Amino acid sequence: MNYQVDETHDPHLASWVASAVGHPDFPIQNLPYAVFHRDGAGPRLGVGIGDYILDLTAVAELELLDTILAAALRAETLNPVFALPAEARRDLRRRLSVLLSDAACRSVLEPHLFPVTDCLLGLPAQIGDYTDFYVGIHHATNVGRLFRPNAPLLPNYKYVPIGYHGRASSIRPSGLPVIRPNGQRKPPNAEPPDFGPSQRLDFELELGIWIAESNGLGNPVPIEGAQRHIGGFCLLNDWSARDIQAWEYQPLGPFLSKNFQSTVSPWVVTPEALAPFWRAQPCRPDGDPRPLPYLWSESDQKQGALGVQLEVLLSSSRMRKERAEPVKLSQTDASNMYWTVAQIITHHASNGCNLNPGDLLGTGTISGPTRETYGSMLEISRGGAEPVGLPTGEQRSFLEDGDEVILRASAQVEGFARIGFGDCRAIVQAAPAL
Amino acid sequence: MNYQVDETHDPHLASWVASAVGHPDFPIQNLPYAVFHRDGAGPRLGVGIGDYILDLTAVAELELLDTILAAALRAETLNPVFALPAEARRDLRRRLSVLLSDAACRSVLEPHLFPVTDCLLGLPAQIGDYTDFYVGIHHATNVGRLFRPNAPLLPNYKYVPIGYHGRASSIRPSGLPVIRPNGQRKPPNAEPPDFGPSQRLDFELELGIWIAESNGLGNPVPIEGAQRHIGGFCLLNDWSARDIQAWEYQPLGPFLSKNFQSTVSPWVVTPEALAPFWRAQPCRPDGDPRPLPYLWSESDQKQGALGVQLEVLLSSSRMRKERAEPVKLSQTDASNMYWTVAQIITHHASNGCNLNPGDLLGTGTISGPTRETYGSMLEISRGGAEPVGLPTGEQRSFLEDGDEVILRASAQVEGFARIGFGDCRAIVQAAPAL
Repeated sequence: MNYQVDETHDPHLASWVASAVGHPDFPIQNLPYAVFHRDGAGPRLGVGIGDYILDLTAVAELELLDTILAAALRAETLNPVFALPAEARRDLRRRLSVLLSDAACRSVLEPHLFPVTDCLLGLPAQIGDYTDFYVGIHHATNVGRLFRPNAPLLPNYKYVPIGYHGRASSIRPSGLPVIRPNGQRKPPNAEPPDFGPSQRLDFELELGIWIAESNGLGNPVPIEGAQRHIGGFCLLNDWSARDIQAWEYQPLGPFLSKNFQSTVSPWVVTPEALAPFWRAQPCRPDGDPRPLPYLWSESDQKQGALGVQLEVLLSSSRMRKERAEPVKLSQTDASNMYWTVAQIITHHASNGCNLNPGDLLGTGTISGPTRETYGSMLEISRGGAEPVGLPTGEQRSFLEDGDEVILRASAQVEGFARIGFGDCRAIVQAAPAL
Repeated sequence: MNYQVDETHDPHLASWVASAVGHPDFPIQNLPYAVFHRDGAGPRLGVGIGDYILDLTAVAELELLDTILAAALRAETLNPVFALPAEARRDLRRRLSVLLSDAACRSVLEPHLFPVTDCLLGLPAQIGDYTDFYVGIHHATNVGRLFRPNAPLLPNYKYVPIGYHGRASSIRPSGLPVIRPNGQRKPPNAEPPDFGPSQRLDFELELGIWIAESNGLGNPVPIEGAQRHIGGFCLLNDWSARDIQAWEYQPLGPFLSKNFQSTVSPWVVTPEALAPFWRAQPCRPDGDPRPLPYLWSESDQKQGALGVQLEVLLSSSRMRKERAEPVKLSQTDASNMYWTVAQIITHHASNGCNLNPGDLLGTGTISGPTRETYGSMLEISRGGAEPVGLPTGEQRSFLEDGDEVILRASAQVEGFARIGFGDCRAIVQAAPAL
């Protein structure tokens, strides 16, 4: 199954929700899902439309949807929606597109529309497992260069979509603060290590991939069928404590330097909504090894990469006091992924590992080739050696308490409506006292 | 809270369940929990007693237990039991000890006793996150020596309880087969890598630790309070594909070489049951650095190590055909852990990472200092160079299809009843066709 452009992507399609028309993030061509709370009530499912959220759990009671779709919407997480077959998920999008564009539906649906600003958006799913990849080749090169100036990429990088397991329990939705972790730190010339607040707290600009259908333990996912397993996309900030990481990570990889928290944007942008923005994989230069057969598909090479623009902004507490706008640290593009989303999924399941609805995959930090396109402070400040200036005169090598980091993403091509991902943001809180 | 020997450990305490008296694994002094299925019905909670399992979900309806305990037992997993405060879990054990020893309770409970052989034992809990540690110092040394003969242990090993995140979704209970994974393999002199069944499939002999109470995101666990968070213990076989591991693991650690499956024993042996077997930490030689203050506790050093004996047996399909007994590959002791369970938990939460009821921690492979005490084939066969002979004349460097691996554990000291963990076993199935 490949995602096809259809009538839901028609740039002239208009919603009867006025604010959706020309909305930079949430026009009717997007229709991202979310889990929301209102007035202290329990979580419900919703779909974003302009400045509003449509209560899908309520819509499920209106007999406007097929039974199977309505059943999946009577839930407190998106897991049952992710568990639907790909065709049913496509049908749900088409149906919502009709309901939100057909003026005849307005009177029955309008009571179930709520301003997003009145809602609290939660985690979209109960996350079974979280896996983080490392497919941003410029990031891997930049980080590798800090350790191995002459051979930044390890020999496996162009054969293996490198990934590792992260922590599911500490993933939080946008808006909640991130607490600076304490941990063991050992500068090269100090002995022994000490324990205290990380001095090199960093963000990582990533895309998150929500897993849909399960493959079941023991069943690999052929690359031609990998797209069925994509439930949607979000922004992902994989907070990292670089000093803790440098001391702990050998030989088994990052652990406490990463698992204190990751932040996701709450909207699930579906792969169907992104149909006009899938494009040829541009990131494998001539001369690079051809992927092994289980990772190779002609159609994936032609249409497996994501045309999504990403940016990181920062606002210090002093900037907020002085009412300065957040400063843009970086702007980059998902085409800097060396492996496609289908290749990531197929590789992950190639040993029979079971991926389940609501699992989250991270792409790894997506950096471009130049400083203004880097996806982490580690790269932007070159390991702390070249701090960034803020409009207040402050400088940043790594993050300070009170800093707010904001990730944004959007997709835009000629002839289609622009769609956005919504913000992924969090303010750094001081570490707990020792 | 430290675990105290009390009347439930009295070696003269006898159950009215006759097979429990003198039972090598499940006397009344043990009382391990499990999740079981019978006659195709849904899962229920149970406690092991002799050759029987007592249906705790049924007992919860008999008004023999406090309300809070009964409520936790009306469940399909042990998560609600793990979520109880430590004092309530201790009370549950005491109450079950009385019910199963007091002859007056026999008539009301006997209808809810089922022979274990008639039951299917499932996963004890819904596992939120699975973390594997690396605290078997002889294992870390043996594996490190294969890569770095002169400096097998990395500089962080004696400061940091090294761990990494594993895969929760592919953890299966004892008795289900393990499927040999396909994956990328690259012998040092071959180029490029190829893809196919792992040729170096291995077991890892570990203890698993079920997490009880949650600490909540952002809240470290002081080492003096770490034992409250132990819900119980099991055996854990962290199956490993050494050829896949060698090629993929840099720089972020093991991934597909481990996450195709892990097998746990289904019985949850409680820390209270092990009270007579906690002992002084013997594994930190004089001259080793003192743990940093957050990992140091006098009482943990005196009583934080586990006196548990472990063994691995192997039976090939030919051995089973010829009715040969499984051969013992190795026998070792949990005192070979360099860090205590409390240190593992405190370290894991030291950055604020939230551990939740039903999370699983692995100790990492527990090897002793000599070949007959090694906990993996990688060590026993010295990387494949010195195969092991089987009674059939077969040889093993790594595991072959049809091999059954059986892990066992028990605790025994003078003056107390011996308690056992039950088997953790699985047969290796051939890899899926490519």
